[in-house]
Amino acid sequence: MSAALPTGSVIGILGGGQLGRMLSVAAARLGYRCHIYDPGANPPAGQVAEVVTTAPWDDSDALKAFCAAVDVITYEFENVPAESLDLLESICPVRPGRRALEISQDRVTEKDFLTGLGLATAPYADCPDLDSLTRALERFGRPAILKTRRFGYDGKGQVRIDEDTDVAAAFAALKGAPAVLEGFVPFLSEISVIAARGVDGQVACFDPGQNVHRAGILRTTTVPAPIPPALRSDAVILAGRILNALDYVGVLGVELFVTPGGLIVNEIAPRVHNSGHWTQAGCTVDQFEQHIRAITGLPLGDGQRYADVTMENLIGDDMERLPALLADADTQVHLYGKADTREGRKMGHVNRIARGA
Amino acid sequence: MSAALPTGSVIGILGGGQLGRMLSVAAARLGYRCHIYDPGANPPAGQVAEVVTTAPWDDSDALKAFCAAVDVITYEFENVPAESLDLLESICPVRPGRRALEISQDRVTEKDFLTGLGLATAPYADCPDLDSLTRALERFGRPAILKTRRFGYDGKGQVRIDEDTDVAAAFAALKGAPAVLEGFVPFLSEISVIAARGVDGQVACFDPGQNVHRAGILRTTTVPAPIPPALRSDAVILAGRILNALDYVGVLGVELFVTPGGLIVNEIAPRVHNSGHWTQAGCTVDQFEQHIRAITGLPLGDGQRYADVTMENLIGDDMERLPALLADADTQVHLYGKADTREGRKMGHVNRIARGA
Repeated sequence: MSAALPTGSVIGILGGGQLGRMLSVAAARLGYRCHIYDPGANPPAGQVAEVVTTAPWDDSDALKAFCAAVDVITYEFENVPAESLDLLESICPVRPGRRALEISQDRVTEKDFLTGLGLATAPYADCPDLDSLTRALERFGRPAILKTRRFGYDGKGQVRIDEDTDVAAAFAALKGAPAVLEGFVPFLSEISVIAARGVDGQVACFDPGQNVHRAGILRTTTVPAPIPPALRSDAVILAGRILNALDYVGVLGVELFVTPGGLIVNEIAPRVHNSGHWTQAGCTVDQFEQHIRAITGLPLGDGQRYADVTMENLIGDDMERLPALLADADTQVHLYGKADTREGRKMGHVNRIARGA
Repeated sequence: MSAALPTGSVIGILGGGQLGRMLSVAAARLGYRCHIYDPGANPPAGQVAEVVTTAPWDDSDALKAFCAAVDVITYEFENVPAESLDLLESICPVRPGRRALEISQDRVTEKDFLTGLGLATAPYADCPDLDSLTRALERFGRPAILKTRRFGYDGKGQVRIDEDTDVAAAFAALKGAPAVLEGFVPFLSEISVIAARGVDGQVACFDPGQNVHRAGILRTTTVPAPIPPALRSDAVILAGRILNALDYVGVLGVELFVTPGGLIVNEIAPRVHNSGHWTQAGCTVDQFEQHIRAITGLPLGDGQRYADVTMENLIGDDMERLPALLADADTQVHLYGKADTREGRKMGHVNRIARGA
């Protein structure tokens, strides 16, 4: 505790979306104040933060002023430009650190890191050109998934290559962005582990949840995941190895495929994660507070679950179901304060509590 | 739902202390934005609200501008001056309404109202002068408690009159403030009910909690209160009668004494209440969100408890225990972001969850 940031300290958050918003509330609950940095005007997190800076990522004056105003910097998404981070890190501690961000910003670097730890991933191959793609496809077979190496999220920047897919057209669809081909993994289900590591190296994991996606976007996470105890501990141990290898500080999301042969790491996210929202309803310390505790040097919550929960994202016109959701006694509603409802846009989520669990 | 305030609407909150702070977070979770009005600079609620107005209660220009900027007004404490409310109410809906505030601002008016409903209270007498005090004391016997009619909270504005107390000195201690004498009630315990009523008249109550005070300040609330089921339903029915009689909209706190002869109403608070903080850990919809739902016309949560909880206030140098509290796996910590720790000042609270309840 001696190294913990004192109450009233200011946490700088890069990105003002819903994750930044929920981080800001968690920080306030621990007596900290928040300063949001976002290129977009009126970010959702700004509604619950003390200060908001609206400036582009490459505005070095704004970045310097931001550093001067905060005691520690964290981020709610992994695509902060490297040059901005260089500048920020030279002035103020950034947690989680640079290495986690570099790794997760690039699918090839990430998979190299994971396989280097001895962890299983889908087969993958860097595909700088059509020729290398064609060769990788011969090795992996079809279906396979061609992805941009960088800046992909919620299924964006991906093309599935089926038996009848024109490979050249698929490659062209990525518009010259560096690409990676991933072999198809016949998985039984997807789970994720939300894990945290403190400044002192303490590690704590939440129970793995089972995820269901639709159109590349997470729809629901159910906890506990219906998997055997052995897989549950495998998932937790594996997350701990990743955290330690990165000398990580903060919350990390690890998406895993459950296959007949065991767990395969799909991807990691160096931040709080959509599949960890259920912790708001089921744990003493939720993932947002856990992250704030980690980056400020406070002791971590233990991650134990005291209720079973199903989290469901409210996407686009799911918002039309809001009256029924608000009227349901077992449903906790979390809206993100976004002005416009758009197709595929995450507008909020609900946590459904299984009573008497 | 047709009458509910749309998402993105602005809720004006009079008072920016910890209750306003937690209301602001709850409002954000439902997609609303908050505007705090407080005479003091840098109020705790301002750290998690979009806009803060710092102005005195009698600044009619500031009050008018506040009304113009918000869609509905509520308050976190009951001592907003009547003249300010007159002005606000003439421009913008204020919920809960004026009558609840008038009644709770004055102990004699409040007890007249409660006894008028047929509810039991401690014996009480308006004491405009020493003579009336002396006569009331003869009727009630000693000990008795002399209180200011208005502006009392956390045991302030109270003098206990014991066998050896000099009555004239006790009366003088109130410095001419209008006073009320309350007869001593030999109670077994104190409980409170946090109840809510919607715009449409829907009523929902949380489980009664048992309160323990020290030096006039609430220390702990434990839920469920260890009382017989009959008393529990008496408490809930009684709270419902008060809400309906006031045509109340919002959350109301009702403090009750448990006596061998049944329940006696100690006092009512027309707002979220310290003894309802446990709902943050034990209910799908907590008292803060319940209040926001009520005043915005959303359906109320049902108040059911899914975990047993003990809430403990962190007062003054209780903050020195913070490291141990943060390290306890079953303890949820809520700090209020107050810069200075002072004796008797509420700095935060913790909710301890009884696992497997």
